[in-house]
Amino acid sequence: MRIVIAIGGNALLHRGERADAATQIRNVASAAEQLAWVAERHQLLIVHGNGPQVGLLAEESERDPTLERGYPLDTLVAETQGMIGYWLAQSIGRRLPDTQVGALVTQVVVSAADPAFDHPDKPIGPYYPTEEAERLARERGWEFTKEEFGMRRVVPSPHPIRVIELPIIKRLLDDGCVVISGGGGGAPVAADRSGLEGVVDKDLVAALLAEQVQADLLVILTDVPNVYAHYGTPRERPLVLVSPEELEAMSFAAGSMRPKIDAVCAFTRATGRPAVIGALDELAAVVTGARGTRIQPVPAHFG
Amino acid sequence: MRIVIAIGGNALLHRGERADAATQIRNVASAAEQLAWVAERHQLLIVHGNGPQVGLLAEESERDPTLERGYPLDTLVAETQGMIGYWLAQSIGRRLPDTQVGALVTQVVVSAADPAFDHPDKPIGPYYPTEEAERLARERGWEFTKEEFGMRRVVPSPHPIRVIELPIIKRLLDDGCVVISGGGGGAPVAADRSGLEGVVDKDLVAALLAEQVQADLLVILTDVPNVYAHYGTPRERPLVLVSPEELEAMSFAAGSMRPKIDAVCAFTRATGRPAVIGALDELAAVVTGARGTRIQPVPAHFG
Repeated sequence: MRIVIAIGGNALLHRGERADAATQIRNVASAAEQLAWVAERHQLLIVHGNGPQVGLLAEESERDPTLERGYPLDTLVAETQGMIGYWLAQSIGRRLPDTQVGALVTQVVVSAADPAFDHPDKPIGPYYPTEEAERLARERGWEFTKEEFGMRRVVPSPHPIRVIELPIIKRLLDDGCVVISGGGGGAPVAADRSGLEGVVDKDLVAALLAEQVQADLLVILTDVPNVYAHYGTPRERPLVLVSPEELEAMSFAAGSMRPKIDAVCAFTRATGRPAVIGALDELAAVVTGARGTRIQPVPAHFG
Repeated sequence: MRIVIAIGGNALLHRGERADAATQIRNVASAAEQLAWVAERHQLLIVHGNGPQVGLLAEESERDPTLERGYPLDTLVAETQGMIGYWLAQSIGRRLPDTQVGALVTQVVVSAADPAFDHPDKPIGPYYPTEEAERLARERGWEFTKEEFGMRRVVPSPHPIRVIELPIIKRLLDDGCVVISGGGGGAPVAADRSGLEGVVDKDLVAALLAEQVQADLLVILTDVPNVYAHYGTPRERPLVLVSPEELEAMSFAAGSMRPKIDAVCAFTRATGRPAVIGALDELAAVVTGARGTRIQPVPAHFG
């Protein structure tokens, strides 16, 4: 099978952990154990997130007194592609020394007129105390949202239209390489290739790539074992097998699950092939179908 | 022809310029004009430097109060591969929209016992006033060297042994992609793939790659049009055509020209093919042989 796996930046830096490299390298090594299991059995394309990491680099860059201004988000996303792509390639390569692992810098075309640029809603970086968030909003023009653990910066998250490096990605998959691409959603560029200030959702890019490389399965990893109906209520129950229609009829908070739902539905509708949302630490069982929430079209004769 | 071009991090951030992204993106666009000219005519592998850039990121990371310690050099090199690889791919892609450009995160195996780890001598990052350098030496254990424009941090520069992603690089070149790899000399890893604290010389990695992808020509770019005999003396004269033996018999300061000389001699000796050292803004003429210092073996019948 050809499988596309999306893994969150939070899986590489857990909430509450300091963002030291050693911590993240340890977390990547643990994820790589799961990913290598898949790579030994299937063609594998990995799309990693970068929410905590791109926020950290943005903060460091803004604070740099030698710069006139902090680096733009497209450049910072590319930096995280280098950093996280290296950690993943290093860690998977250590487990599978005879497998080629290619981490590719990836640009994703978005519309410069995407309404997201006027409505920043993707949270990145650390949690800030309210007073500090208010100060940064004044000083840097950053926008913030209130989350459970504090205030977080929000940035525009335009819709991905096209992955510029698609032919290279296909070629490397055909050759049996493990490919790491679309990291952090890809560096967002306009049709004329100029960089744009945003962070594309990595799950949506994974769905786009999965469709275009004709993947047999799209796996979206998260920190819970399933999607839940009536999440957080007494009627909460895990979903095992649902159609995109059923899933879209349910309501989910706009937070981190929403883009995952959008991604799996987009892939399944476009291709008729299955997608699954599940937990990183159960990846083998998620891929074989024993765990996770599987999304697939209702066969026509049930329709 | 298949050509490997090494371009310095200083070509993307000139001495005295602020390290803002906009400045570097402008410089990259100017370099991309030259590089695209080559890419339209030849198979092209680009190896970029990162001296100023990796030093900047190291400084930002060390100053980050949320981290227990600054990020290690191998990780920072990978970040610069993402950043500079993106800028180059974006800028070349804008000029040649039908050409695939692949910027690949690259790991280079070095010996963990390389004597360079005990003798840091590669300058990175900005120029510091003497007092600040002394303070950083005390606080961070950094080592410094005195250069013409101030003190610079020096880091270990181990010898490159093997490029882990070589099969991918070859495949992409065979396919007609412009490949950007070995950036910043590659992230240095030990044989067991653990990251090491150093910055490999990008010219030596370019020579290694040029040999292994069977390049017809190795081009090492710099900011002067030639290598000079008796540089800085009244007897100074530009070298036009020399053999590795002649070049190695001359003396050069240990600074930035020495690794370039070592790189071209290594490539020419190993392959019998020519290399050239020349200026970025004369790249077309350097490739055609009209400018620069060409290094090639003396034909046997002259020997």
